[in-house]
Amino acid sequence: MKHERIVVLAHEKFPERAKTALGVMRYGDQEVVAVLDRDHSGQQIADHVSNVTDGPIVSSFPEAREMVDRPIDAVYVGIAPIGGGFDDSWRADIQAGIEAGCDIVAGLHYFLGDNDKFASLAADNGVQLRDVRRPDDELTVSRGVADEVGAEIVLTVGTDCSVGKMSSTLEIVETLRDRGVDAAMIPTGQTGIMIEGWGTAVDGVVSDFTAGAVEEMILAAGDEYEYLVVEGQGSIVHPAYSAVTCGILHGAMPDHLVLCHAAGRDQIHGYESFNLPTVETYVDLYEGLAASVSGASVVGGCLNTSGITTTKNAQHQIETFGEQIGAPATDPVRFGAEAVADALTETGRLGSQPNPGDRAGDDQWRCARRTSVLA
Amino acid sequence: MKHERIVVLAHEKFPERAKTALGVMRYGDQEVVAVLDRDHSGQQIADHVSNVTDGPIVSSFPEAREMVDRPIDAVYVGIAPIGGGFDDSWRADIQAGIEAGCDIVAGLHYFLGDNDKFASLAADNGVQLRDVRRPDDELTVSRGVADEVGAEIVLTVGTDCSVGKMSSTLEIVETLRDRGVDAAMIPTGQTGIMIEGWGTAVDGVVSDFTAGAVEEMILAAGDEYEYLVVEGQGSIVHPAYSAVTCGILHGAMPDHLVLCHAAGRDQIHGYESFNLPTVETYVDLYEGLAASVSGASVVGGCLNTSGITTTKNAQHQIETFGEQIGAPATDPVRFGAEAVADALTETGRLGSQPNPGDRAGDDQWRCARRTSVLA
Repeated sequence: MKHERIVVLAHEKFPERAKTALGVMRYGDQEVVAVLDRDHSGQQIADHVSNVTDGPIVSSFPEAREMVDRPIDAVYVGIAPIGGGFDDSWRADIQAGIEAGCDIVAGLHYFLGDNDKFASLAADNGVQLRDVRRPDDELTVSRGVADEVGAEIVLTVGTDCSVGKMSSTLEIVETLRDRGVDAAMIPTGQTGIMIEGWGTAVDGVVSDFTAGAVEEMILAAGDEYEYLVVEGQGSIVHPAYSAVTCGILHGAMPDHLVLCHAAGRDQIHGYESFNLPTVETYVDLYEGLAASVSGASVVGGCLNTSGITTTKNAQHQIETFGEQIGAPATDPVRFGAEAVADALTETGRLGSQPNPGDRAGDDQWRCARRTSVLA
Repeated sequence: MKHERIVVLAHEKFPERAKTALGVMRYGDQEVVAVLDRDHSGQQIADHVSNVTDGPIVSSFPEAREMVDRPIDAVYVGIAPIGGGFDDSWRADIQAGIEAGCDIVAGLHYFLGDNDKFASLAADNGVQLRDVRRPDDELTVSRGVADEVGAEIVLTVGTDCSVGKMSSTLEIVETLRDRGVDAAMIPTGQTGIMIEGWGTAVDGVVSDFTAGAVEEMILAAGDEYEYLVVEGQGSIVHPAYSAVTCGILHGAMPDHLVLCHAAGRDQIHGYESFNLPTVETYVDLYEGLAASVSGASVVGGCLNTSGITTTKNAQHQIETFGEQIGAPATDPVRFGAEAVADALTETGRLGSQPNPGDRAGDDQWRCARRTSVLA
């Protein structure tokens, strides 16, 4: 089931701390007919975010129903606190949504479906609770075979959380498609999954299966596309999230890396006592770690310049960033992903030919398959 | 509850592929009164393993009860297949154990306690099912504060799985204690937990909480000891398990690293199409990644020389290994951990002073506590 019209819950966090809400608005096919944020009630989405469909910001789900004269298919939880817990102040809106016949889509570590009250209410109203971070029970350890698929595998890696890896991934895929290249995103986080309608939230997987979760997705899609762009997560030096980053890197066995950074970011977001190492250090670490599974190097860079006002200054920062990583760079949201797409297609088709049969024992493993969580 | 006398289940895998069974025999306080292995039934433990208490190898739990004339407190599952699944051929022994009043201790990703039949049988017989890989529900993301404890934090890191990180950790702790240093192990894997009676199996934790799980253990124990030696897992270049390794490294914020390697290991164990990089590469990668959270360097090495027959050759290999890592090395099981203990106590007490108050917002986080899973 695709959701056509949705309400996004982002209480007290819209827009700056509602990354999921913004991602769905910018890149999802769903129409966001209202945002729930009791702190900004009475305002419009367009008061805060440009280049997305406008709509009202309201204080509650019932109010959204009053304002919107068309059916609402689902409520998406568009925020996720650190640790992914449920905030009790969301309860009334979730319940009202269910009672109004809406599916509920959430990317928390806390699973709505495990709440008996929500579950029985959902059953009574014939709607679904979709916890996109709930991992498939069938996940297991990686076999180290993602490089056997036909597609060229690209991975976006970052200098930190919230530097634009997901947006960069989506922009790169879009640009490749515009050129007639058959490309797809491998969604590894809640927002990417909500946008694409399938994927595995790798940060919610048992840590032993982190690489395996990525491998499974690549095996499922890898022979259907020319390019798969894997959405990276976190950063390899992050004090809390580096496990996820490292597992994705080795599970993906990428052919190429694209380094994402936010201009001016000096400290780790939310961990400001930790300084970011130099950009060159990141290139060394990512390439050094990738070397054990592939010969991937950083072939392009995406610099998030949203904090820089003038075009000239943004372009200058991008130029410097490109020199630091030794590869073409852009801000894909501001200036398009052409430079990175050029680098990928020029360097593509090298060293990624499938090598069937050079690893034994395949038969004992189940075939991977693509799991649609929103279909 | 401590288990005094236990039976270890290791069907078809004893001793080479029964790492947990061997670890408990060598380092646990429990007396292993029998091993269950239907492939070696009728033989003795001493036919296969030296320097541990001898006992019979039998084909089933009922047979163990016949052979052993003292009460048996528990059945430990001493093997874990890749992926951590349950093997149905173990069912009869588990059930017979429960019916005989034994606790069942297992380190699978599959939780015995979630099996309704086992759970009700255990309740009926007043015994406990202890899934040591089941994570604490209260785990969350790391705050990046493990370096604030009073203890010197040491982390064993490896070139691969099954190179001797747990044994090295236990030997280093033992050697430090023999010198009157108040040292403890931070157990991060199922075998270490079974031996120590507490800990968190980090490979069973949600990947977002990998570092947080380690941080919690260090905060719980860190002011009670002079040295904490954190048991490392996997390897930073492992195609399947590197996420666990990386999360432990950043969660532990170690003051010192001890690199563990198995002499002669050229390919990744179980992933033989992947070559190990050079030892020097591992030093660079581990130190490069640690740099973001601490200034840790590799101060010692542990080389597993169990595959080398002559003492002279083993010593020669250790010497070479020490030169490669630029630090003192030993085989702690064969020659003792003195060389590494020397290196740690000589370099200790540098750069690890607690820095209370240099990170804000502590009050919003619950205090970590030590969770005893076997007490």
